Amino acid sequence: MTTTIIDPAAVAEAFRDDIRHQVSTFETPPTLLGLLANNDGPSQTYADYTRRACASVGVHFNLRSVPRLEVEEAIREANADPNVHGIMVYYPVFGTGQDTWLRQVVDPAKDIEGLHPFWADCLYGNRRFIDAERSRKAILPCTPLAILKLIDAAGALAPNTPLPLQGQHVCIFNRSEVVGRPLAAMLAHDGAHVTSFDLDGPQLFLPPDNDQRSHTVQECNLTRTQALARADIVITGVPSRAFEPVRAAEIAEGALCINFSSVPNIHDDVLGKAATYIPRVGPMTVTMTLRNTLRLYTNALTTITAP
Amino acid sequence: MTTTIIDPAAVAEAFRDDIRHQVSTFETPPTLLGLLANNDGPSQTYADYTRRACASVGVHFNLRSVPRLEVEEAIREANADPNVHGIMVYYPVFGTGQDTWLRQVVDPAKDIEGLHPFWADCLYGNRRFIDAERSRKAILPCTPLAILKLIDAAGALAPNTPLPLQGQHVCIFNRSEVVGRPLAAMLAHDGAHVTSFDLDGPQLFLPPDNDQRSHTVQECNLTRTQALARADIVITGVPSRAFEPVRAAEIAEGALCINFSSVPNIHDDVLGKAATYIPRVGPMTVTMTLRNTLRLYTNALTTITAP
Repeated sequence: MTTTIIDPAAVAEAFRDDIRHQVSTFETPPTLLGLLANNDGPSQTYADYTRRACASVGVHFNLRSVPRLEVEEAIREANADPNVHGIMVYYPVFGTGQDTWLRQVVDPAKDIEGLHPFWADCLYGNRRFIDAERSRKAILPCTPLAILKLIDAAGALAPNTPLPLQGQHVCIFNRSEVVGRPLAAMLAHDGAHVTSFDLDGPQLFLPPDNDQRSHTVQECNLTRTQALARADIVITGVPSRAFEPVRAAEIAEGALCINFSSVPNIHDDVLGKAATYIPRVGPMTVTMTLRNTLRLYTNALTTITAP
Repeated sequence: MTTTIIDPAAVAEAFRDDIRHQVSTFETPPTLLGLLANNDGPSQTYADYTRRACASVGVHFNLRSVPRLEVEEAIREANADPNVHGIMVYYPVFGTGQDTWLRQVVDPAKDIEGLHPFWADCLYGNRRFIDAERSRKAILPCTPLAILKLIDAAGALAPNTPLPLQGQHVCIFNRSEVVGRPLAAMLAHDGAHVTSFDLDGPQLFLPPDNDQRSHTVQECNLTRTQALARADIVITGVPSRAFEPVRAAEIAEGALCINFSSVPNIHDDVLGKAATYIPRVGPMTVTMTLRNTLRLYTNALTTITAP
């Protein structure tokens, strides 16, 4: 079969058109503050991407370079500054558990990365709105949201149903707190059976039962071979060359393959067997930060109380 | 010089006497729920310690063994159960960032381990009470609190001053989010200059300036040799045999040496040069969980709003 390769930059462009249009209707455009503690390659590059993405849609972007020990204070200042509408911290700052601490210092109302426990609690609980009127949508973390939108762009979401992934099997290699675990929960909430692999062993994320609001998780003993063979969607995010890339022989004919790791986790030989191959996610992630900025700006959240 | 060796179990006994007396004055004693996900050695042993400690002071202790994927739900049930006054989770549960997630699921009003971000925020901000009337004391994490009480037992805290460690130099090997970093901040709030070592490099925690409420942190380039030579108090907590134990030749005459690692991080040759040597902290940590249980019980906190 012919494999369609999707360029995430092209998908992102359609989202940016929409964001640009919405921003143009505001009297004052939103302002996003980037906090850069490490002038190392990846963080600086990501900050450059953010700058260009903001410029392309008319969002103001201020980048502050601060020593890592001043990031917390800079976040608190930005939390209190009414002229800052979104905060983007370029992690890793410490590369330790202290980064998790920083994530929850960001005011959820300005947390365009969607990494605050407030938003994680909404996500894991499958609460898609933060108000009873269902007018203010919850923020989702950028990379999982980017992947969901790419699954949609690949035509893998059933239209007009609350469970657009019902009956689909997904296999994810990564169970980090910032991408793999929230992504597995989101896809299960959309109806998928998700096998989640990590050094810590495989787990199965299952859709909500009739009487449940959110997904359930079970330990499972599926092997990589078994999980890949039945997966309609394969998602890889292992930032290590020790991970053996997923090969054509392992996947089902017609699968959708998505890699979000900086290291290629999917072998090129899937071309010809996969229906769709999406080799990277990055441009969509940046675009989802803009989308979240816009959402928080229009939500006009000044105070959020815990759910 | 003769080195005094302090047995933390003996110090703990005095605290337990006090707790036992207070518990005896209640109509209903507090109930502590332990959640054990891993029946491995250390967690099971620690649960046994808790059981005996509770029995010794009259606190009810219920231990539930649950699969790790059910710990979060068990925490939420305990949060909602008015008959549970304190929750103790035996970490590691997952041994990944998901443990940090679990820590913030515990209701701060039942978090006897003092690890919820609510309490960490009080600690780092040097807010010692959670009400304007200063009647409800904030909860401190058990191991840092245990170490502070052992410093006191060693006679190293100046009496009748808000800065009982003023002018003292402390050297800590460990900057984890659960012990080393909060401990460094606490000791700085009490007036100490703290050099904090970690694989990530040394940092200096300094007491509040006149116009500040809480400590400041600076990167520093002190070597281990320099920091140890000037330290009045040496605290080690490196759970690795790769750490070269602190030796007599490195410390100042008359120093106070405390090890809280399960691995001996201080060489026996400090006997004869240190004023005081405290080879372990464990029994005091368990006792501080009881003390925190009592505090939360008497605070009678049913709802805490973010500070």
